[in-house]
Amino acid sequence: MHRIGNLKALRERLSAMNVSAIIIPTNDPHFGEYTQDHYKVREWLSGFNGSAGTLVVTLKDAALWTDSRYFVQAAAQLQGSSIKLMRMKMEGTPSISQWILQQYPEGELVAIDRSLFSYSEYEALCSDLAPCKVQLIDDIFDGLWEGRPQLKFNPIIWLDRKYTGESSRSKHERITRALGLQDERFAYIVAMCDEVAWLCNIRGTDIEYNPLPQSYAIITNAAIHLFADLGSISDEVKAHLLNDGVELHPYSSFSELLAQLPAGTIRIASKSRTTVRDYMAMDAPGVRILEDPIRGGAVNYYKSIKNNWEKDGFCKAFLADGIAWCKVLKFIDDNLAAGNALNEWEIGEKFAQFRREDSNYRGESFEPIVAFGPAGALPHYSATKESSQIVGKNSFLLMDTGAHYIFGTTDTTRTIPVGELSQAQRRHYTLVLKGMIRLSMACFPKNTRGSQLDILARGPLFNDGAMYFHGTGHGIGHYLCVHEGPQSIRMEENPVTLEPGMVISNEPAVYIEGEYGIRTENVILVQEWKHNNVNEFYNFKTLTLVPVDLSPVEWDLLDAQESEWIRKYNLHVYETLVPHLAEEHAQWMREKYLG
Amino acid sequence: MHRIGNLKALRERLSAMNVSAIIIPTNDPHFGEYTQDHYKVREWLSGFNGSAGTLVVTLKDAALWTDSRYFVQAAAQLQGSSIKLMRMKMEGTPSISQWILQQYPEGELVAIDRSLFSYSEYEALCSDLAPCKVQLIDDIFDGLWEGRPQLKFNPIIWLDRKYTGESSRSKHERITRALGLQDERFAYIVAMCDEVAWLCNIRGTDIEYNPLPQSYAIITNAAIHLFADLGSISDEVKAHLLNDGVELHPYSSFSELLAQLPAGTIRIASKSRTTVRDYMAMDAPGVRILEDPIRGGAVNYYKSIKNNWEKDGFCKAFLADGIAWCKVLKFIDDNLAAGNALNEWEIGEKFAQFRREDSNYRGESFEPIVAFGPAGALPHYSATKESSQIVGKNSFLLMDTGAHYIFGTTDTTRTIPVGELSQAQRRHYTLVLKGMIRLSMACFPKNTRGSQLDILARGPLFNDGAMYFHGTGHGIGHYLCVHEGPQSIRMEENPVTLEPGMVISNEPAVYIEGEYGIRTENVILVQEWKHNNVNEFYNFKTLTLVPVDLSPVEWDLLDAQESEWIRKYNLHVYETLVPHLAEEHAQWMREKYLG
Repeated sequence: MHRIGNLKALRERLSAMNVSAIIIPTNDPHFGEYTQDHYKVREWLSGFNGSAGTLVVTLKDAALWTDSRYFVQAAAQLQGSSIKLMRMKMEGTPSISQWILQQYPEGELVAIDRSLFSYSEYEALCSDLAPCKVQLIDDIFDGLWEGRPQLKFNPIIWLDRKYTGESSRSKHERITRALGLQDERFAYIVAMCDEVAWLCNIRGTDIEYNPLPQSYAIITNAAIHLFADLGSISDEVKAHLLNDGVELHPYSSFSELLAQLPAGTIRIASKSRTTVRDYMAMDAPGVRILEDPIRGGAVNYYKSIKNNWEKDGFCKAFLADGIAWCKVLKFIDDNLAAGNALNEWEIGEKFAQFRREDSNYRGESFEPIVAFGPAGALPHYSATKESSQIVGKNSFLLMDTGAHYIFGTTDTTRTIPVGELSQAQRRHYTLVLKGMIRLSMACFPKNTRGSQLDILARGPLFNDGAMYFHGTGHGIGHYLCVHEGPQSIRMEENPVTLEPGMVISNEPAVYIEGEYGIRTENVILVQEWKHNNVNEFYNFKTLTLVPVDLSPVEWDLLDAQESEWIRKYNLHVYETLVPHLAEEHAQWMREKYLG
Repeated sequence: MHRIGNLKALRERLSAMNVSAIIIPTNDPHFGEYTQDHYKVREWLSGFNGSAGTLVVTLKDAALWTDSRYFVQAAAQLQGSSIKLMRMKMEGTPSISQWILQQYPEGELVAIDRSLFSYSEYEALCSDLAPCKVQLIDDIFDGLWEGRPQLKFNPIIWLDRKYTGESSRSKHERITRALGLQDERFAYIVAMCDEVAWLCNIRGTDIEYNPLPQSYAIITNAAIHLFADLGSISDEVKAHLLNDGVELHPYSSFSELLAQLPAGTIRIASKSRTTVRDYMAMDAPGVRILEDPIRGGAVNYYKSIKNNWEKDGFCKAFLADGIAWCKVLKFIDDNLAAGNALNEWEIGEKFAQFRREDSNYRGESFEPIVAFGPAGALPHYSATKESSQIVGKNSFLLMDTGAHYIFGTTDTTRTIPVGELSQAQRRHYTLVLKGMIRLSMACFPKNTRGSQLDILARGPLFNDGAMYFHGTGHGIGHYLCVHEGPQSIRMEENPVTLEPGMVISNEPAVYIEGEYGIRTENVILVQEWKHNNVNEFYNFKTLTLVPVDLSPVEWDLLDAQESEWIRKYNLHVYETLVPHLAEEHAQWMREKYLG
């Protein structure tokens, strides 16, 4: 049990530092969805490799907090580790602070890595942990973790203006104006790698699924300052950057430079998106640190509103992806018809294989979900080569996959029937589709928030007493992260309004535990629709080009407009894809989806 | 122009007090929708009698701020008064503070009546008016306003337990528990007359349309303290109150008693619902004034959740009102068929006349709106005996009226076709109805907010590029105010969730300026619908019992479920009302609505 040995070594280290506990999050200094392996300390120590979890090690005990998606997996992976599983949001589960205080009610030192917690998390911990005190530390795992992966810095890619549509110089000017700081000395801190990439028109391959270089930026009144591994920037890329007014700094000099900002410079940094390390580096007597004044964050907000080049790129990406999907769907159909055994993992691989046929493909945008039957009801199921199931009968095969192309990012879910379906299965399939169609057809006035539209997707399920426990829609980056903000379509209030140019997913679902999951996901673009003397209305354009299987539809659950919408959608997909398809694929599509 | 004389006298008074301006709101110390005539200083000084407006008089100038509903009316009524009209939310209109500062940029004293502004309004003014200073004054108009109406204190009515369903003692206990203050000395301030009335199970006739006594309350750990005119409380009512643990105090002693609260007592008062006078009276060094910890306000929130007695009462009220509506609708039908001229005001009177036939009737719950043709598009049109129009042809007659009964309050809108309608008129009528039906049919999980459901009512209009600029639903009191909180169904976010027992209106509409207005309003009750192992679902029960005219409906705009819903609704209304109708009314209803 080498994991127990690792915990012991860690405890010795803590003792030597005079601290009684350490909190180990799932994070890096950039607050992204994925981190490099170098930061996967929690996984290394605990053995639990889910995407979310916080490990706490005290001198006396150890425990891991994770959410309901991972209860089963975490319980299995923690076996024999001596680490307790803490099931978040379940009755009786203490918070991290409560649990630490149970052990040290008199107050001891609790260590956190100053690079892995945001300043607002730090403030909350200071208050919740009292009388314990928070001890800020640097990374201590290099010496403990044998064979720890190094931080990777792969070559930085310059994204041509024909894809981005806007120079960094112009982005700098727009944001400076939006902040109202044209005539001030200011420093706007950018810690999220996707914001840096959008600002500087660069991409990378440092982080799995997110096509980003590990980097920071600071926007000042004079320029955009990029902090990246200078050795990973070719002369050609460097020339582009310098030509576009981007100044280059070593990745490691970011905090240092923050500490050297002149006192009179206005600092703008989000407490929840700046590490304790960087927030403190900026702080000094008499210094002003302002919160980002733009709802959702200035860079994040403007990044979410796609320009015409980006919109065109999305259309190309969905065309390329639609062709690949068509090939995968026919591949599945043919094999099932022939009675061949198909496994989930193999289908996931097929997506990547067919996508790779397009030279603009740049990789998957997230780990593909291919799940048959009951596995479809597990929200984060992911088949491995070893654990993959064979596609069975009389249930659904759910496939949620997406890709990066040089001109855009995709995310599509289709659920296809295999064998005979029950009436309940057909009903659920139709209600999910009805919700997807209703949201697709929505028209709404300017200043509408996503939470106002959410019921259009959920309503048909609600009226059947069904429900799904995730959002209906997330933003999608332009050859950037497949999940981005600040917009969303969820039940929870989000003050960000939906603006023309925003790209967002539309993915109602139903999960019947132990039986099946159904999700149908298109990606939609907010666009201007109609003006009159008092109102400006917007609606959605659907970008996804993957046909929807209509064989399970109970038509009397759709009204005339909804039925017409989905038939027209399949026809539109066919007509758009057919010039790019071999005749055998075209014919198969015609027969299967336009019949 | 005696109004100019009044302004002159006021300015002399201001000069004598050394202040340069006074802000005169539309308010009384209780923050209700209606005030007694005694408080209508703005109307007396300006001549403008709309329901919303703020008058500012400086030594140099005078201006009145009002919103778009009243631009036309205010312009007419201010003619010759020397008072400028300030059109709120229009480009170029200064705020009150900006306008005062334009005249006194160096800073002067600006008077406000300490009893007519909330503490939060006062705080905002202090900040916005700087370098001017806010001077708190008492009412100065008794000496200026000749013949000013006295404050009325009519007899207080005790509402029997068979109507209220819960004693004041029990309400006291529930609220104390909800505040978590069972073991503390506290004082919870109640300034709103409807909250006082609900707490003490009393009603009154002091305020037009709101069946309330002018009163305050303080809830302490020991009792409910009622501040009312003791001379207006009969021995019988007094006995009920004392028996129910309510302690009586003179109305005028409220502020005084606040000033005498022991230092250790926790004060709970909403800054936005407590006058400057009372907030300051409570304040003292070392004293804690807490904001109400319950979302929407503790008393207000619990008042909004109706118990079984109140729900039964609402059903009785809508039955009684449905009978009256039926008689009015037949009266209109008969007269139009006979070619008789009908005027709007007369129809409004008919409602009161037919309602009065029920001995439980206690008056109208708001000024009836009866508006033909273009008048229906004016949001606050109200026909007077003198100005009333004759009901014409080929358009809509919109009627929005409600009543108080001893067991509940109603609010219903129906729009009926007169003559031949155009296709656009029929389409609009159907889309409004479709929105009303969609909201009526909604099912939704626990913890849903009104803003999530709003699009169900608006969506059909949005998809036609149409819109209405008011909320879809407001709470309704139980023989209390026809508009109450804290719940709502609006586009704007309101964190209050919809809970079983809440009563709320459902009133989508469309207004075509210069042509017609269409509004269809039912009142709906939130109720429990379905449980399963993960979810609790709610839906609505429709309380209103007034048939909907289906002759203008374009049936292809409704889906099968919607058509079925509205046909069943009319049948349900008929079957519920018929035992209480004379045969001629029953037959008319059968033929007109079930045909």
